[in-house]
Amino acid sequence: MPLFPELENLGAAMDFIDGIYEVVEHIPLFGGFSYPDIERLSAYMECFGAPAGTALLEEGQDGDWLILLLTGSIEVVKKDEQGVARPIAIAGPGSTVGEMSLIDGRKRNASCITLEPTDFAVLTRSALNSMLAGHSDLCARLLLVLLTEMTSRLRAANERLMPHIGIAAV
Amino acid sequence: MPLFPELENLGAAMDFIDGIYEVVEHIPLFGGFSYPDIERLSAYMECFGAPAGTALLEEGQDGDWLILLLTGSIEVVKKDEQGVARPIAIAGPGSTVGEMSLIDGRKRNASCITLEPTDFAVLTRSALNSMLAGHSDLCARLLLVLLTEMTSRLRAANERLMPHIGIAAV
Repeated sequence: MPLFPELENLGAAMDFIDGIYEVVEHIPLFGGFSYPDIERLSAYMECFGAPAGTALLEEGQDGDWLILLLTGSIEVVKKDEQGVARPIAIAGPGSTVGEMSLIDGRKRNASCITLEPTDFAVLTRSALNSMLAGHSDLCARLLLVLLTEMTSRLRAANERLMPHIGIAAV
Repeated sequence: MPLFPELENLGAAMDFIDGIYEVVEHIPLFGGFSYPDIERLSAYMECFGAPAGTALLEEGQDGDWLILLLTGSIEVVKKDEQGVARPIAIAGPGSTVGEMSLIDGRKRNASCITLEPTDFAVLTRSALNSMLAGHSDLCARLLLVLLTEMTSRLRAANERLMPHIGIAAV
């Protein structure tokens, strides 16, 4: 089944290299990526355009892809224990969401809803595996970016768990 | 400065390949690693032996290496907001600790104290960078293992933060 059949498919990310480079060159995490690197990376991604109010990820749903926001913005929303959707973050161009399901194949932890018209690039697990086989150097450097992002989130989660120590993650 | 100058240096992990392979072959995360893979991986690691009661990592200290436990066990300990050390986990052979500082170079989040005589292998950030340059395929596969571990910890942390939603990590 195609990804996001109801959205405008902007085509291969290769067609958006300038736009993608413009976004990621401002992200310190991607500091080591040259224009040719982004070109090679784009060969493994596909781009879409969504109107405001579109769910790019849905909490509890399957999906093993990661999203890199190119334009626009999203709200990250998670249901509380009573099942009421609660906004927990806002993210804009250059942000990635969906890493956890890309890595472990488990269900989405939260929903991501566009706040305005938003273009984004998608990296699936299958494309990541192809990159590992075809451009392992590029793949390793991308995985280091994701690990840095995950480490930052885990440190933030641990901070928040401090008052409940004894249950902190390590 | 050498790592762990006060501990018995067991030498290059290359001399412990059988032992390391015996440990990691039982870890599902390392399922894709063959004996020759472990041999190549070991070339980037060094082994040490510590008596009971040794701090392998110390909360708040610098250190950009990861530890893979080969024998024995450790207790993970973290100070609460009053500065009192609280045990938060126990880990045995095959467990890794110290990933976050390996990745982001920031201070240790918790201490790890050996509960019995314990042998362990060390992977430094510098060795990880060499592996990326020399064996990027192996490096990418190791980073996927670390990402899977970090994802699992982040999901666990998010679970624990559920009652405090609004502050959950994504």
